[in-house]
Amino acid sequence: MVRPMESDSGARLERLSGMLKRRGFILPAFEIHGGSKGLYDFGPNGGRLRNRVNQLWLEHWTSMGNVTEISCPTITPYEVLEASGHVGEFSDYMTSCISCDEVSRADTLLEEFHPNPDSLSKLELQSLLEKSAPQCPACGTNKWSTIISQNLMFSTRIGAGNSGREGFLRPETAQGMFTSFPALYRHFREKLPFGAVQIGKGYRNEISPRQGMIRLREFNMAEMEYFIDPEAPLNHDYTQWSGLQMVMLSEDKGELSITIAEAVDSGIIRHGTVGLFMAKTYDFLVNVGIDKSRIRFRQHETNEMAHYATDCWDAEIHGSYGWVECVGIAHRGCYDLQSHENYTGKTLRARREFPEPKEVIIDGWTIEGSVAGPAFRSQAGQVKDAVEKLPSDTQFPCEIILDKEVVVVDSSHVKRLQRTDLITGEWFIPHVVEPAFGIDRIIWHILDHAYQEIEKQDESYTVMRLNPDVVPVDYAVFPLFEKNGMQEIAQKVSNILNSKRGVVAIYDSSGSIGRRYARADEIGIPICVTIDHQSLDDDSVTLRQRDTGEQKRVQILDL
Amino acid sequence: MVRPMESDSGARLERLSGMLKRRGFILPAFEIHGGSKGLYDFGPNGGRLRNRVNQLWLEHWTSMGNVTEISCPTITPYEVLEASGHVGEFSDYMTSCISCDEVSRADTLLEEFHPNPDSLSKLELQSLLEKSAPQCPACGTNKWSTIISQNLMFSTRIGAGNSGREGFLRPETAQGMFTSFPALYRHFREKLPFGAVQIGKGYRNEISPRQGMIRLREFNMAEMEYFIDPEAPLNHDYTQWSGLQMVMLSEDKGELSITIAEAVDSGIIRHGTVGLFMAKTYDFLVNVGIDKSRIRFRQHETNEMAHYATDCWDAEIHGSYGWVECVGIAHRGCYDLQSHENYTGKTLRARREFPEPKEVIIDGWTIEGSVAGPAFRSQAGQVKDAVEKLPSDTQFPCEIILDKEVVVVDSSHVKRLQRTDLITGEWFIPHVVEPAFGIDRIIWHILDHAYQEIEKQDESYTVMRLNPDVVPVDYAVFPLFEKNGMQEIAQKVSNILNSKRGVVAIYDSSGSIGRRYARADEIGIPICVTIDHQSLDDDSVTLRQRDTGEQKRVQILDL
Repeated sequence: MVRPMESDSGARLERLSGMLKRRGFILPAFEIHGGSKGLYDFGPNGGRLRNRVNQLWLEHWTSMGNVTEISCPTITPYEVLEASGHVGEFSDYMTSCISCDEVSRADTLLEEFHPNPDSLSKLELQSLLEKSAPQCPACGTNKWSTIISQNLMFSTRIGAGNSGREGFLRPETAQGMFTSFPALYRHFREKLPFGAVQIGKGYRNEISPRQGMIRLREFNMAEMEYFIDPEAPLNHDYTQWSGLQMVMLSEDKGELSITIAEAVDSGIIRHGTVGLFMAKTYDFLVNVGIDKSRIRFRQHETNEMAHYATDCWDAEIHGSYGWVECVGIAHRGCYDLQSHENYTGKTLRARREFPEPKEVIIDGWTIEGSVAGPAFRSQAGQVKDAVEKLPSDTQFPCEIILDKEVVVVDSSHVKRLQRTDLITGEWFIPHVVEPAFGIDRIIWHILDHAYQEIEKQDESYTVMRLNPDVVPVDYAVFPLFEKNGMQEIAQKVSNILNSKRGVVAIYDSSGSIGRRYARADEIGIPICVTIDHQSLDDDSVTLRQRDTGEQKRVQILDL
Repeated sequence: MVRPMESDSGARLERLSGMLKRRGFILPAFEIHGGSKGLYDFGPNGGRLRNRVNQLWLEHWTSMGNVTEISCPTITPYEVLEASGHVGEFSDYMTSCISCDEVSRADTLLEEFHPNPDSLSKLELQSLLEKSAPQCPACGTNKWSTIISQNLMFSTRIGAGNSGREGFLRPETAQGMFTSFPALYRHFREKLPFGAVQIGKGYRNEISPRQGMIRLREFNMAEMEYFIDPEAPLNHDYTQWSGLQMVMLSEDKGELSITIAEAVDSGIIRHGTVGLFMAKTYDFLVNVGIDKSRIRFRQHETNEMAHYATDCWDAEIHGSYGWVECVGIAHRGCYDLQSHENYTGKTLRARREFPEPKEVIIDGWTIEGSVAGPAFRSQAGQVKDAVEKLPSDTQFPCEIILDKEVVVVDSSHVKRLQRTDLITGEWFIPHVVEPAFGIDRIIWHILDHAYQEIEKQDESYTVMRLNPDVVPVDYAVFPLFEKNGMQEIAQKVSNILNSKRGVVAIYDSSGSIGRRYARADEIGIPICVTIDHQSLDDDSVTLRQRDTGEQKRVQILDL
């Protein structure tokens, strides 16, 4: 949920956005061709920052030990997204302006006329649209076409000619992890719980994108699907978070400041694994530089969740656009695997062994092979399976529905089946807990929180106090002058630093050292290295810290 | 170019592919839904390997110091790809079977009937198709539709309704780097040379994908666009490769074994930067585990290159499919930036200062403002620009073509312009050298070269001798038995290892230690850690090396 931004922060937002564009963090894509709404570039500084956030995210989850990374295609056949429910349900209500053809989301148009228009049905929206006649944001007139439901997936055709088939760009990375369940189950040697993470592009053909990085048509997603046995006891240890009061907006109790353990124990968080992932999500956000005091968790209301979900919490971050949902942590039950099972007929299950074998009494029917075999021929196997599922009080003859036809089974085809079996375990559909991260929104807030405007010698001065783990550039190397050999030493220092794994250094020789510090601070470079006259004598350089301004001399060899 | 595979390696290829699927390296995507040709998953082991190869690639180029990473959308508006030439020219010749509708590439169908069918024109292909009547690979009949040119981009619509616009999934990452040129030029403080790298998905709607990972519809690309001043002297230093004889198939001299410096000096490689990147490409391939003896560089023939390219070399790797092109290194001249300039009217240039200011003599025409102003009103500026480009011997009246109309300029509108200007520099379109890597093909060959089938105690045994930098798992941790506390120690060791940044450890307790070593060797885990009875007494564990089988005991604290 995106709330309106505070009016006094509008000017800061404009200055921040301008800086991010000018310094190559985030830019409208394809701008020389006029741009395209909802598509952004991570530029010469943003690209590295994005990569570092992605890698930290992967590391954060795979370090659990039972979580592995996979990578699936973004192009997805129609069937997969029909099975998942996206073909039927992934849509917004849309209307278009009769005068200028501009399309708008109906709920967005009606924000002034209703406190929560996205809770309205299509009929309610239609009636409110007619009554309130909002102005078209493009041309100012107020006549609208009938509201229609518009699917939000980008569609394409896979293959050419008549052998081509319909497909979509994935709306989320999750489906690839569900369809990979058999490979994951094998990889983890058939032992739950385990998780798969995937990071990559997701696509949503927004009707009218807005708010910069908050609502994109192509976005960077990071999701984990964590598969659990719903009957297995949980042994999560929350002690490392015992001193942490988290802000939670719960469905029943409103806003609370509470520890994860208390929230799980009291049932406010309805599943222990959801609680664990909320705590780990908090850690991740703080580790990449989100301000602790601007994170809260909001529980979905029961009527806001998907019907199959048993609990869902959003991590919301506060920034220039107000509180914005950046992560969703949902207990999805067995919905996803069940849907793909039903659609494909393939088994997507795990086995649970009983502590002790169990006796089960079989009391029903089976086929009389000598009669049913000749009668049903190649279908006899299917008939047997169906007959063995019939209740013991079935009356024959009866009709049985097979894959492609209906057959009549009479009493000569069957015989009673009564016995006691000992079974050692059973197959079940795992449940799934899913943390889903919107990486672009998180990156936006990292930048928003790090950006500080200060006064320096009566001039406005900005510094990005980014966490050193996510900075685009680790070191800036400055020759005081480009003469007397300082340039060569500076180039050598820059090469040494760049040759270290994972380290990025830039060489900058233009303008005064003060101007160069300012440029470095503006993009958040933690350390500036200056090569001066003394360096020529003793191979020492000056290191200057971004946040403290502190300077010290070190030997080049010790860098 | 993909050559047919050697027949004796077919069985090995089948075993390798089977293992890669079973152990979750590479799997057909969406298999529970019947799969989709040309789409693959990197599974529970492949996902991490892919990520590590990607990160090593980025590090390899950004460590140059003047190269930065960016990330652009995959969805690309029509205009961008019209400007680049892809709308017009990115296509294959296709025909479909009259009986079964299956589509095929015309050149693929005709491979048996011509030594190099992809060099044929559409007319030549059509005539050969009719004469040779090849069998349909799907149904065996041999009647074909007329050959058509089929564009290979996946198309989609951006936005909904009448305000939607046409777009494509990018066929390469390169265009995003060209359209980002203004941001890159600013980032690098307007100093050439510099490069941008990008790694991500590329898409090509292949008519009939085949050969597993070699020809995909969605693939992982890694490209650098390196912008240079064509007039600046090169000062590349090839000494680090002075001992390296590389295999080159040159256009003029055939196969050579030669150093980079020799090939550049003798003009076999036509540009020094192309040579530098060939050497760096070789280093990268060897660093990620490609067998040195199975790399060669093949120069494109002049009639095989795009018309604007001045030199192009493919790095080919030999493996189960023969020699396969995995990297292309092309000098693209100023073609790309020029195309976007022409299309958009935006300036995509760099400035070159002259060592000394130059005198230029202006001898031509300009407008007589007092007459031309009233005569051409708002178009006067355009007329002035056009008039100043006219040669000094122009006769008036003459027609001038403006953006939207033609005007007549007569002698009263103009006057002579003769003066001497001093200019200090000039704007020019940078040239581009582009190394483009097919990451999937490289990963395929990493796996192919690492895979070794050996005999061990009369049983077939396989080991993946992967470079430790790209392995999916760094450590396997084995409790000898799951009792007496060995399990807890093993779990603790696994947690310690996983908590180290960038390290992945798995815990495996099932089967004999020999069975577990075999499973670990099969996916290339470099080190196995066994916790046994002695560990309970002295906190030591056994480390076993994958490649030597060597074992030694170390303290858990020293891991």
